[in-house]
Amino acid sequence: MKNLTIALDVMGGDKGPLVSIVAAIMAVEKLPYLSLILCGDQDTIQGHLRRQKALNHPQITIVHTTQVVTMGEKPLAAMRTKKDSSLRRAIDLVNEGKADACVSAGNTGALFATAHLILKTLPGVERPALISALPTQQPNQHVFMLDLGANVFCDANVLYQFGVMGAVMAEQVDGINKPRVALLNMGEEDIKGSDHIKLAAAQLAESPDINYVGFIEGNDIFNNKADVIVCDGFVGNVALKTCEGVANLVFEKVKEVFDKNVVTKILGQFLAPTLKKLFKTLNPDQYNGASLIGLRGIVVKSHGNANSKALFTAILEAVKEVERQVPQKIKNTLEQELLQGPK
Amino acid sequence: MKNLTIALDVMGGDKGPLVSIVAAIMAVEKLPYLSLILCGDQDTIQGHLRRQKALNHPQITIVHTTQVVTMGEKPLAAMRTKKDSSLRRAIDLVNEGKADACVSAGNTGALFATAHLILKTLPGVERPALISALPTQQPNQHVFMLDLGANVFCDANVLYQFGVMGAVMAEQVDGINKPRVALLNMGEEDIKGSDHIKLAAAQLAESPDINYVGFIEGNDIFNNKADVIVCDGFVGNVALKTCEGVANLVFEKVKEVFDKNVVTKILGQFLAPTLKKLFKTLNPDQYNGASLIGLRGIVVKSHGNANSKALFTAILEAVKEVERQVPQKIKNTLEQELLQGPK
Repeated sequence: MKNLTIALDVMGGDKGPLVSIVAAIMAVEKLPYLSLILCGDQDTIQGHLRRQKALNHPQITIVHTTQVVTMGEKPLAAMRTKKDSSLRRAIDLVNEGKADACVSAGNTGALFATAHLILKTLPGVERPALISALPTQQPNQHVFMLDLGANVFCDANVLYQFGVMGAVMAEQVDGINKPRVALLNMGEEDIKGSDHIKLAAAQLAESPDINYVGFIEGNDIFNNKADVIVCDGFVGNVALKTCEGVANLVFEKVKEVFDKNVVTKILGQFLAPTLKKLFKTLNPDQYNGASLIGLRGIVVKSHGNANSKALFTAILEAVKEVERQVPQKIKNTLEQELLQGPK
Repeated sequence: MKNLTIALDVMGGDKGPLVSIVAAIMAVEKLPYLSLILCGDQDTIQGHLRRQKALNHPQITIVHTTQVVTMGEKPLAAMRTKKDSSLRRAIDLVNEGKADACVSAGNTGALFATAHLILKTLPGVERPALISALPTQQPNQHVFMLDLGANVFCDANVLYQFGVMGAVMAEQVDGINKPRVALLNMGEEDIKGSDHIKLAAAQLAESPDINYVGFIEGNDIFNNKADVIVCDGFVGNVALKTCEGVANLVFEKVKEVFDKNVVTKILGQFLAPTLKKLFKTLNPDQYNGASLIGLRGIVVKSHGNANSKALFTAILEAVKEVERQVPQKIKNTLEQELLQGPK
């Protein structure tokens, strides 16, 4: 394996630096060819590393930063005023070629705005998108969904580019051949939806490189009808968070069922570990990393609430994207699409 | 109880006329003051009524129609060419004052387009909206969500009107005093979302009659943070159908957990009835009626896939809206809002 380096924004996230540092140690112990640059307050990081018996770990270096972007901070203000924040430095390291990717559990808006400003979009990409792999009814099979909230509104061209970007992710990260790309709509029929969705559908259908399979509705997201589902960031964010809401609702209601009487209580205790594991996979936002794609560098976002396991998963996701050269592949595919002439 | 009459589109829905007719018999047997007008093919209806031993039921009359709007038919074409369809006649009866409400499990688009054309919107209402009561984590407590798919895009004024209409529904149908109204957004902070959502937020916040509680995210739909959740029809439709998708996914995954070994299989069989009941309530689209509100008449839509129980529930929903005079109350509230001068 080729050596690679990932910059980690240690100060981001709701839970403080310790979870990032524990995740970092897990990652370097798993992958001997991985180097991590921990961006954050040097004393804090060294203290934690010492307590975790990982001070002076050969695969870990520290870049000292003096500022922290808080979770509630306004993205544009953070971008302008916090040029020595851990979040900003992690992105700078990617831009300077000192890291191959960055990972953060910090302020989502600030991460997007800063990454967009510093790393810039790839040629042919108008807007970056947030993408994540959701579970499906098929065991071990994912569906990639984008945009999950990087943009409020997306026109037809942007949705079409998201289709191309999503297909590259499914192909490179999950190894799917000719991934099926669908547009999320309020009906399956051609006449349904807004004008820009119909236009994006026409563009995707005409593309020889994209295996476009048509419109899909919310109830079919998890049915293995598509490998990539494209929508604007508003709709994607609502859909993703609604999943989380339903999963929590079901969890509460199932607990109520088990709490009914002594017998169900015993059954519940027996099943609890398996059910808990199940509900975790149904909270993809919380338990997997999401990637900001379409930029000239790799940026993986972990949930603000992420624990060490989730951050560790996000680091592995970043490693995968580096190894598969996702940005380069997106660039190549879009160039090829554009070369094939006007649609 | 005052006598009231409801027109039922017997030919609509995926399952054929029998489910509507069984639902009709259930409803008149429960409510002695209810009359039902069954719109559809007279011979078919009489045949079913005879087999159900309800021919010549004093509370049931038949209006013979010669056309059927099929489920896949284009709404505008159906509206123009099928003026003697069961769907159209049910709406006509409301418009002519011969029925107090109509109920259909038929083609959703055709029902909306026809109801909009024939019944027209109330003064002050630009667009009708599809509304339904979803379950929450609080037992026996609902949240009303609109628009669930009657409109693709809604501007600020329309969203504001939906807030008013939803508050009236929550107040009249569920008896909630000063219902909390929220806007569905991709973040809770004021700066999040599109311009028209921010504008709608300002309008709702300024209204003295509306208890506006701010933005809400998808994960909080079921958390009892609001009694009414407002969004455009595209977003609402995706959110509602995503609920259905997640509920089905969880159901499948829970089944997998139970299928693991002999012990879990026995536990599964023990818990199956309770869990099945739970998952039904999590498919609100399928198991409750949704109402098309903002019109000069009451229109309740049952899922195309509805069984007799679901259609019976939809008829009871229509009865409730007639008794509480929902259209009149929406009209009064909007007039009062407008009288209070410019916002």
